[in-house]
Amino acid sequence: MPKYYEDLEPGATRTCGSRTLTRDEIVEFAERFDPQPFHVDEAAAQRSIFGGIVASGLHTMCASMRLYTDDFLDDIALVAGRGLDEVRFPNAVYPGDTLSVRIEGLEKSPSPSDPSWGEADVSLTTVTRDGETVLSLSNVFVVERRPADDSE
Amino acid sequence: MPKYYEDLEPGATRTCGSRTLTRDEIVEFAERFDPQPFHVDEAAAQRSIFGGIVASGLHTMCASMRLYTDDFLDDIALVAGRGLDEVRFPNAVYPGDTLSVRIEGLEKSPSPSDPSWGEADVSLTTVTRDGETVLSLSNVFVVERRPADDSE
Repeated sequence: MPKYYEDLEPGATRTCGSRTLTRDEIVEFAERFDPQPFHVDEAAAQRSIFGGIVASGLHTMCASMRLYTDDFLDDIALVAGRGLDEVRFPNAVYPGDTLSVRIEGLEKSPSPSDPSWGEADVSLTTVTRDGETVLSLSNVFVVERRPADDSE
Repeated sequence: MPKYYEDLEPGATRTCGSRTLTRDEIVEFAERFDPQPFHVDEAAAQRSIFGGIVASGLHTMCASMRLYTDDFLDDIALVAGRGLDEVRFPNAVYPGDTLSVRIEGLEKSPSPSDPSWGEADVSLTTVTRDGETVLSLSNVFVVERRPADDSE
């Protein structure tokens, strides 16, 4: 049984699983999508404010969204993602850093466009093992409402 | 010569290059970062509101940011990315869709944290060849100010 709109608990918190980003993965991802020198070139990265290669924020975000999908979204009757708000990268992710995602809360409201849908807004914070925040964002998604003929 | 804060023109617009997303790429990306059924499973995708496999919004965003990096960010004296705002996916990207990124404007302001830096906020819109908007977002980044001893 998937979780419907009615099953989502406002204010719910949860810690999703963890994931370590290796240097090879960081460089490979950045070469493909975000080839800034401080993501792909060790010498240039040493001269940057980071002092060494760091992960693309897009990579940190994608890895975090995967943890969030596996541990939270996976059993929800998802219709579609609608967007992301206030995506911030307050600290850099270095090779070997282990990321863990905290779901900080959840708000929900009926969909303005379809009575069989609802919308949910979840705040995510990604932290390293040292407790440093490397990413925060809000994810808005559309979820099915429980069908009227569905026996609980 | 890189472009410094002083060289960025508020209100500038530009169209960056284009990129076609193949079905294999869409599935491979989603299996790694966003394994929702409507991104990775043709039969499930046909039952979804999309009627077939569509790209993860994260994939659309990463591909768009690469076009933006290659055609705009690349020659800017970038210090770091700060974040993304109001990321929205108003229409889905289907296999074979060709994406192009429009930079719609730019605002800039001195950095509150460092007098040698400035901040810029650029609005991006990704459209298909049919002119359909598939992504919009704002990107905030930190850029170096022109060094005082730098001859123009």
